[in-house]
Amino acid sequence: MGLSLAHKIIHSHLVEGSMEPGKEIALRVDQTLTQDATGTMAWLQFEALGLARVKTELSITYVDHNTLQTGFENADDHRFLQDMTAKFGAYYSRPGNGICHQLHLERFGKPGKTLLGADSHTPTCGALGMLAIGVGGLDVALAMGGVPFSLVMPKVINVQLHGRLAPGVSAKDVILEVLRRLSTKGGLRAVLEYSGDGLQYLSVPERATITNMGAETGATASIFPSDEKTREFLAAQGRESDWCSLGPDADAHYDQVMEISLGDLSPLVACPHSPDQVKEVTELAGMPVDQVVIGSCTNSSYLDLVKVARIFQGGKVSPGVSLVLAPGSKQVLTMISEHGYLGDMLRAGARILECTCGPCIGMGQSPPSAGVSLRTNNRNFKGRSGTADAQVYLVSPETAAASALEGKLTDPRKYGDILHLSMPEKFMVDDGMVIPPQPAGSSGEVRRGPNIKPLPLKSELPAKVEGEVLIKVGDHITTDHIMPAGAKILPLRSNIPAISRHVFGSLDPTFAERALTAGGGFIVGGENYGQGSSREHAALAPMYLGIWAVLAKSIARIHFDNLINFGIVPLFFACQNDYEVLAQGDRIALPTLRADIEAGRELTRAVRLATGKELEMRLELSQRQRVILLSGGSINWVRLKNKEQ
Amino acid sequence: MGLSLAHKIIHSHLVEGSMEPGKEIALRVDQTLTQDATGTMAWLQFEALGLARVKTELSITYVDHNTLQTGFENADDHRFLQDMTAKFGAYYSRPGNGICHQLHLERFGKPGKTLLGADSHTPTCGALGMLAIGVGGLDVALAMGGVPFSLVMPKVINVQLHGRLAPGVSAKDVILEVLRRLSTKGGLRAVLEYSGDGLQYLSVPERATITNMGAETGATASIFPSDEKTREFLAAQGRESDWCSLGPDADAHYDQVMEISLGDLSPLVACPHSPDQVKEVTELAGMPVDQVVIGSCTNSSYLDLVKVARIFQGGKVSPGVSLVLAPGSKQVLTMISEHGYLGDMLRAGARILECTCGPCIGMGQSPPSAGVSLRTNNRNFKGRSGTADAQVYLVSPETAAASALEGKLTDPRKYGDILHLSMPEKFMVDDGMVIPPQPAGSSGEVRRGPNIKPLPLKSELPAKVEGEVLIKVGDHITTDHIMPAGAKILPLRSNIPAISRHVFGSLDPTFAERALTAGGGFIVGGENYGQGSSREHAALAPMYLGIWAVLAKSIARIHFDNLINFGIVPLFFACQNDYEVLAQGDRIALPTLRADIEAGRELTRAVRLATGKELEMRLELSQRQRVILLSGGSINWVRLKNKEQ
Repeated sequence: MGLSLAHKIIHSHLVEGSMEPGKEIALRVDQTLTQDATGTMAWLQFEALGLARVKTELSITYVDHNTLQTGFENADDHRFLQDMTAKFGAYYSRPGNGICHQLHLERFGKPGKTLLGADSHTPTCGALGMLAIGVGGLDVALAMGGVPFSLVMPKVINVQLHGRLAPGVSAKDVILEVLRRLSTKGGLRAVLEYSGDGLQYLSVPERATITNMGAETGATASIFPSDEKTREFLAAQGRESDWCSLGPDADAHYDQVMEISLGDLSPLVACPHSPDQVKEVTELAGMPVDQVVIGSCTNSSYLDLVKVARIFQGGKVSPGVSLVLAPGSKQVLTMISEHGYLGDMLRAGARILECTCGPCIGMGQSPPSAGVSLRTNNRNFKGRSGTADAQVYLVSPETAAASALEGKLTDPRKYGDILHLSMPEKFMVDDGMVIPPQPAGSSGEVRRGPNIKPLPLKSELPAKVEGEVLIKVGDHITTDHIMPAGAKILPLRSNIPAISRHVFGSLDPTFAERALTAGGGFIVGGENYGQGSSREHAALAPMYLGIWAVLAKSIARIHFDNLINFGIVPLFFACQNDYEVLAQGDRIALPTLRADIEAGRELTRAVRLATGKELEMRLELSQRQRVILLSGGSINWVRLKNKEQ
Repeated sequence: MGLSLAHKIIHSHLVEGSMEPGKEIALRVDQTLTQDATGTMAWLQFEALGLARVKTELSITYVDHNTLQTGFENADDHRFLQDMTAKFGAYYSRPGNGICHQLHLERFGKPGKTLLGADSHTPTCGALGMLAIGVGGLDVALAMGGVPFSLVMPKVINVQLHGRLAPGVSAKDVILEVLRRLSTKGGLRAVLEYSGDGLQYLSVPERATITNMGAETGATASIFPSDEKTREFLAAQGRESDWCSLGPDADAHYDQVMEISLGDLSPLVACPHSPDQVKEVTELAGMPVDQVVIGSCTNSSYLDLVKVARIFQGGKVSPGVSLVLAPGSKQVLTMISEHGYLGDMLRAGARILECTCGPCIGMGQSPPSAGVSLRTNNRNFKGRSGTADAQVYLVSPETAAASALEGKLTDPRKYGDILHLSMPEKFMVDDGMVIPPQPAGSSGEVRRGPNIKPLPLKSELPAKVEGEVLIKVGDHITTDHIMPAGAKILPLRSNIPAISRHVFGSLDPTFAERALTAGGGFIVGGENYGQGSSREHAALAPMYLGIWAVLAKSIARIHFDNLINFGIVPLFFACQNDYEVLAQGDRIALPTLRADIEAGRELTRAVRLATGKELEMRLELSQRQRVILLSGGSINWVRLKNKEQ
């Protein structure tokens, strides 16, 4: 029986473990990426390892998140990242160059390679036939130090795409259809591997829209084969030599198969406040719109924006709509400018923003109070836009553009005739805003601004832990709930004492103060706790506040790993109903937690002290994870290992 | 004896008073402008007048200040302004269209007209031969209501420009030379009127750089004749019919004459932290630079940016420099894009921002800690950039571009050969982002977000005032010191209770709390108190905090008027040494203040209660100003007048 593409890449990078779904494996990491919101911590962590230089084939730090610079913090962080990358042999992509995933696709991704990125949308580069996985910054720091990346062997879901999209229906609608079927947890511990005759009509940037938002299903990665379309794209980027043909065996085995008939798809829209709340545009057509945002790592490629410009040609954005547009990269902006499309957009009334993540991460362009915002982004969690009562809908660039002109949600298929485009034969390539690694041995001063604080560490796990349930939350709590981002909080990413004051801020602004006063305690969560962005601060800041364990029904993959990295024990209710037993303010104890982890047991017990009621909690941990938790997190673990050597 | 151009326009608009310098006059206002940071208050004030429609020839509100939208407040304000302009018969320029002064020059300014703007750089349009004056929002609200604008008849300083600038030396260097000679108070109560054979070589956008920064000398206005260059510019903007020939009489009398030989000028730089700290670029050449910012209402015209692009062609911005560039308007951005110059900038490594005020007002792009930032802006007050310890230098676009490439302050004259440019024959005109007034009688809903609070009012001036000296400040305190702006505070402009918490925040964060606790009191200031931006919040917020009077050595013109508008009495030490007598915390009384104002006396006395020491204070007030102060500010005054009618 043949291998899937995912299995082939895993096999060629396997360092430890066997490829049975559910078992822990460890993979060699070829490339890493960080961005500026995760990168300062990742580089502080790498520095703590005591190495002279990164050990990967390629490591790069992009600056795309914290670029508004409404205080000294951002610019200090950029300078710090530039100095650290120079010192330790990594590439540095300057602010203004573009969004990490768009840039990595354009300039660095390679078929068959592994990429570990401290950003949840790292799987975007699966569009090039590479295995690209989003993780917390610490995992990237370890990978830069040559430590293989450990993960649970995922199952592989084959998504077969048949036929061809109708004009006006696009890649965004494909992934919204996948989300409609799988929901935000249907991809957990799985790789989505695309195949089928439909692939011949999907360019790499279109595939990248699909792999990008695979993250919203909870999938470990999404991947397309490296085929003729991949070769064309890499050749147009002037790097055909990076191409190789790569696909699944003809008789590949998959754990699950999903079929999508592309010709049957209509324009779709993800409604507030989750990317899987998918409806057809026609169901909501006519809904008045206050804001339209085109951009983000999901939909800001050259072809995306050319389609937008074509729809805009000769039209005017409705007076009731604020239309903002952020191209994905300097390459994209330069090309739409030189090919005249930027002029079309400006004449229509577009507001042009810097080539960054921007509004997608709440970094500016918050909608008006109770405003309806159509966005080409990947996430529409409540409050993420910066306006608590805004209603954010996710759509394709075509739907966004058509709706901006009409001032209401509009089916873009009426523009179908002008949306037939083909990939440019040559992209404008200029890597002038990427600073390559310094030669080994270059001595570099690292400038640290006053907002860059040392990394806090946790102590070893004690024999017994006891404390208060500091908060009890419902299902589908995102890392945005746990550790809000946005323009006011992201600049604090390098300063854990300061940023931890905002943990759970949108749910309960008293949380941080209560946790510090109580000297720590516990979080109780529902299903899919910690979904969404990869931010390790959603574990690191609670760790700083003294959280011992999260007791939940289920926990999203990246967040689960982040909790372990920072020494917070992830526990699952053996009986889901026990979730009901606990309330905020309850004192609980885990009398045998350390002993149970040491002994490799799969269960431990939590005692509600007021009643003596015992709850069985599952420990779904590999041996490696157990040792890390006992040490108080990965940094302590690596330090101990280094001492032993 | 002939008339100057300023005298001619004043004469043709004179409603009250006689044209003797120092006497109060009142002028008919043809046009008004507001922007979004001053506009929400101005429109609330206009609404309070109870009129159905503006009474000017043209009133417009631009959105250019608060455009980052890092919360719901900005978008709510934009929506409010759009609704208010629609309801009351004004134009609305949408966010993204550009910076008010650049746009007003391009599309609305007319020779011979008067323009009152709620922005201190309103004099920019003096480049078109109009009398353009910056004031507080309330003066604009009154002017929109048909109330003539009262001011002290200025003296007229004739600035004679002879000869021609050397290539690489530009209009910015001319106004820096004026500032070097006049300082930030040399223009107080004066109009700077330009003439001389040098004018034939200066295009309207170059003249606009000069009139724009005339504001930094404290001048009431700056003005150029309307000549062939003016006709060319208006024709290129498709509005030659707005042109008329207008200049001084050949034998015009001036109160003062200043001569500048353009050919003798070198590139200049204004050093931290004042625009009059001017040196030659050669004196500081080689100073390392961390950031370069090109843009703002001073230097973001098409020709400015074409020069920058020419310097950039084929070069790369130094790896140590963050180069950000914000075009002045959609017209400018569209043209540099379609003519290929944007590509040159991008290839060099420029970060392109939205067409707004942006970094100039601290709205993003704060430099790193202790960073050196070269800017084409008009102001470099300490902390205004958003980084308290940054060092901001003001330069021409040519100096900025050359320095960005080298990473250090660089004389741009070496690029002189490629800087010969002429005005385009046609600008790309598209007013699609300006929403014209609704027909009279259109009923309009006005949407008010939760951050838009009603305007607070002061009570009538009591017979006797007594209280504490809440703060004592030194010379040259700017309105940025009194009422900070920047990304965190500007969104509160429509919410006086919230924004007043930040009064004097950078000098003494306890001020607002102390003022509220004390139930109000006094401010003691040095020379030129309240220089800088026109923001009326620097009077309105202290009024809300209970300030009765400002006792100062001298007070900047716009701020003086704003204090009166909001019922705060401006008092001058009759004996400058008495400034030394008072200290923070002293209790003082003004036992006869009301009676002295009522009686038209020019002196009143302040008593330092601890010692009984009496200080003579001058009241430099017109009869109109006295009545306003007795009423507790202009709104009360107009309301009373309306009752009486």
